[in-house]
Amino acid sequence: MATPKETALLTALKHKIDFKTKPLNALGFLESLAMQIGRVQKTTSPTLNKPTIIVFAGDHGLAKEGVSAYPPEVTYQMVMNFLGGGAAINVFCKQNNISLKIVDAGVNFDFEPNSLLINSKVGYGTKNMMVEPAMTTNQVNKCLEESAKIVRDVAQGGCNIIGFGEMGIGNTSAASLLMSKFTALPIEQCIGRGTGLDDSQFQKKRIILTTILEKYPENYSPIQTLATFGGFEIAQICGGMLEAYRQNMLIMVDGFIATSAYLVASFIEPNISNNAIFCHLSEESGHQKMLDFLNAKPILNLNMRLGEGTGCAMAYPIITNAVAFLNNMASFDSAGVANK
Amino acid sequence: MATPKETALLTALKHKIDFKTKPLNALGFLESLAMQIGRVQKTTSPTLNKPTIIVFAGDHGLAKEGVSAYPPEVTYQMVMNFLGGGAAINVFCKQNNISLKIVDAGVNFDFEPNSLLINSKVGYGTKNMMVEPAMTTNQVNKCLEESAKIVRDVAQGGCNIIGFGEMGIGNTSAASLLMSKFTALPIEQCIGRGTGLDDSQFQKKRIILTTILEKYPENYSPIQTLATFGGFEIAQICGGMLEAYRQNMLIMVDGFIATSAYLVASFIEPNISNNAIFCHLSEESGHQKMLDFLNAKPILNLNMRLGEGTGCAMAYPIITNAVAFLNNMASFDSAGVANK
Repeated sequence: MATPKETALLTALKHKIDFKTKPLNALGFLESLAMQIGRVQKTTSPTLNKPTIIVFAGDHGLAKEGVSAYPPEVTYQMVMNFLGGGAAINVFCKQNNISLKIVDAGVNFDFEPNSLLINSKVGYGTKNMMVEPAMTTNQVNKCLEESAKIVRDVAQGGCNIIGFGEMGIGNTSAASLLMSKFTALPIEQCIGRGTGLDDSQFQKKRIILTTILEKYPENYSPIQTLATFGGFEIAQICGGMLEAYRQNMLIMVDGFIATSAYLVASFIEPNISNNAIFCHLSEESGHQKMLDFLNAKPILNLNMRLGEGTGCAMAYPIITNAVAFLNNMASFDSAGVANK
Repeated sequence: MATPKETALLTALKHKIDFKTKPLNALGFLESLAMQIGRVQKTTSPTLNKPTIIVFAGDHGLAKEGVSAYPPEVTYQMVMNFLGGGAAINVFCKQNNISLKIVDAGVNFDFEPNSLLINSKVGYGTKNMMVEPAMTTNQVNKCLEESAKIVRDVAQGGCNIIGFGEMGIGNTSAASLLMSKFTALPIEQCIGRGTGLDDSQFQKKRIILTTILEKYPENYSPIQTLATFGGFEIAQICGGMLEAYRQNMLIMVDGFIATSAYLVASFIEPNISNNAIFCHLSEESGHQKMLDFLNAKPILNLNMRLGEGTGCAMAYPIITNAVAFLNNMASFDSAGVANK
C-alpha cells in the first residue's frame, strides 16, 4: 500500500510527464522509467550519478564436466582482458561514460595485485555439483557480506545507479539450476546453449543438469539453494544487489546469469523490484521465461548473449534519456503549445 | 551481386567481428550493425562523424477534416518549441550529442528569422486531399531539390550519419495513405490513432482515408503518388534521404511517418536500403507492417509514438556502441584468451 506521501509523489510525477509537450504516453517505456526512477529517488527531478558496473568473476567446479563450449581457463583470461581494457564491457562502459570495476569473487587463478581488480576471492572455484554442493552456506554468507561492502563503498562514492555483470565459464548451468529451483519450471525450459554449445554438447548439458537436480531434490531456503547450485560470482551479485537496494540505488539487471542472481535476491527481499531496471532480453534460451516469472519487461532486445554487464551498459543511455526528458522538456504551458 | 572487392571487405569484417573476445554472434544486432556500417563506409574501421537529425515541419490541408487529436496550430507551435529547445527531440539530441536542425518545409505560419530555422517553405500547408491532390508534382520536385541541398550542406560539413524527423498535424493520415498505395495493403492495416484519437475520431479518420483512396484509384508514379497523398515535410524527408544515400551517409529511419517517406524513397532508389538503419518500432499501428514490407528490423521497441526523430536519437547511442566494439575490442589473439 502506498503511503499518502507516496501517492502524492506519483500523482505529481504523472502530472509532470503528462503535461510535457507530447501526446499522452507518447514516450512509452521512457515514461515508465521516469516514473520508476522518480519514485525510487522520491522526487520529480531525479538525477543519475556516477553510473557504475561491477563485473564479478568466479570459476565453477561443474565446468570440468564439459558444460561450456570454452575451457575453464577462459575465466581468468577474460579477467585479464577486463583489466587490459579489451573486453566488450570495457568498450561499452567507456563509450557510455560508466565506471567499471572488476571483482575476483572466486577465480581459480592467483592474479598479480592490480589497482583495477578488487580481491573478494572466496575460493578457487566452486565444487563440482555432480559430487557435492557448489558452496557451503558459510561461503555464500561470506559472498553476500563481501559484495555488500563493495557496493556500500561505491554508494558512498556518490553512485546511485549500478549494474552487475559476470564472467564464469560454466555459469549458465548454475543459473539454469537456480532458475529451475526458484521458478519450479522444468529444467528443459531453463537451459540454453550458453556460449555456443552444439547439439550433442547441449544434450550432455541437459543430462548433467537433470542428474544434479535429481541429486538435490529437497526444497531448501534461498541461501541453501544458492549454496547448492550457484557460484561465487552469482552469490556476490546477489549480495551486491541486496546492498544496492538497501542503499536505495537503481539496480540495472543484465542477462540470464545476472537475472538468476536477482531472482535469488527477490526471494530474500521482494521489494527489490521497486529498484530494478531490466536492461535487456538475452538470446540465451530461458531468459524470457525468467523475466516472465519476475513480471519484468526489459528495455532492449538486441539478441545479445555475452554477459559481463553488457546489456546494462547498452541500456544505460536509454535510462539517461528518460531522466533527461522528465527534467528538461517543456510543458504545454511553458512552451505555449495547445493541448488537446 | 557483390564485387570481389566488396566480398573481400565483408570477409574481413566478419573475421574481425568473429575474433573479438566473445562467443560467436554474442553481440547479436550490434554485429549486424557493425557489418552494415563497415560495408557502407568500405572499411573495417568505420567512424561516426557529426551525427545530425533534421526535423522537417509542414502543415496538411486534410487536418481541417479533423483527422488529428490536436488542432493544426500545434504544428507551428511545436516548431517554436523546437526553436526554444523544449521539445523531446531537443532534449534527446542534447543528451546524446547529436546536432539538430529544424526546417520549415511548409508550415502555415510566418516565422521570424531565426538562426536555428532553415526556411525551405514550399507552401502554407498542403491542399485538402478530400478536394484535390495534396501537392502538385512541381511542388514535390521542389521539395526533393530543397531538402537535397540541405542534406548536401550537412554532408559537406562532415556529417556521415543523419536522422530525419517530422512535425505536422495530420501527417499520420498522409503516411497511412502512402503506405496503402505503395504496399497495396488495405487502409485498415495502415491506420492508427496518431497522437491519440478516441474510438469515434478513429472511425472518422478511417472513413475519410477510405474516401480519399476511392477518389484517387489510379496507380501513379512514385512522385505522383507522393504528390497526391503526401505532405511537404514527408516529401522533403524523402528527398533528404535520397541525397543522404547519394552522399553515402548512414540514414537513421525514425517511426511511422519518416518510414513512409523512406518507403517512397525506396521505390525511387532501391539500393537505399544498404544505408538505412531502422531505429525503432513505433507504437503507431501500421508501422510493424510497413517495416515487414521493407524487410526491416528496428533496433528499439520502446512503445514510443512521438515522431520528431526521437527514435533516431534514442537508437544513436546503440549505433555508436556497434562501431566502438568493432574498433576497440581486443581479439582472442591480442588478449591471450583461448578460443573454442
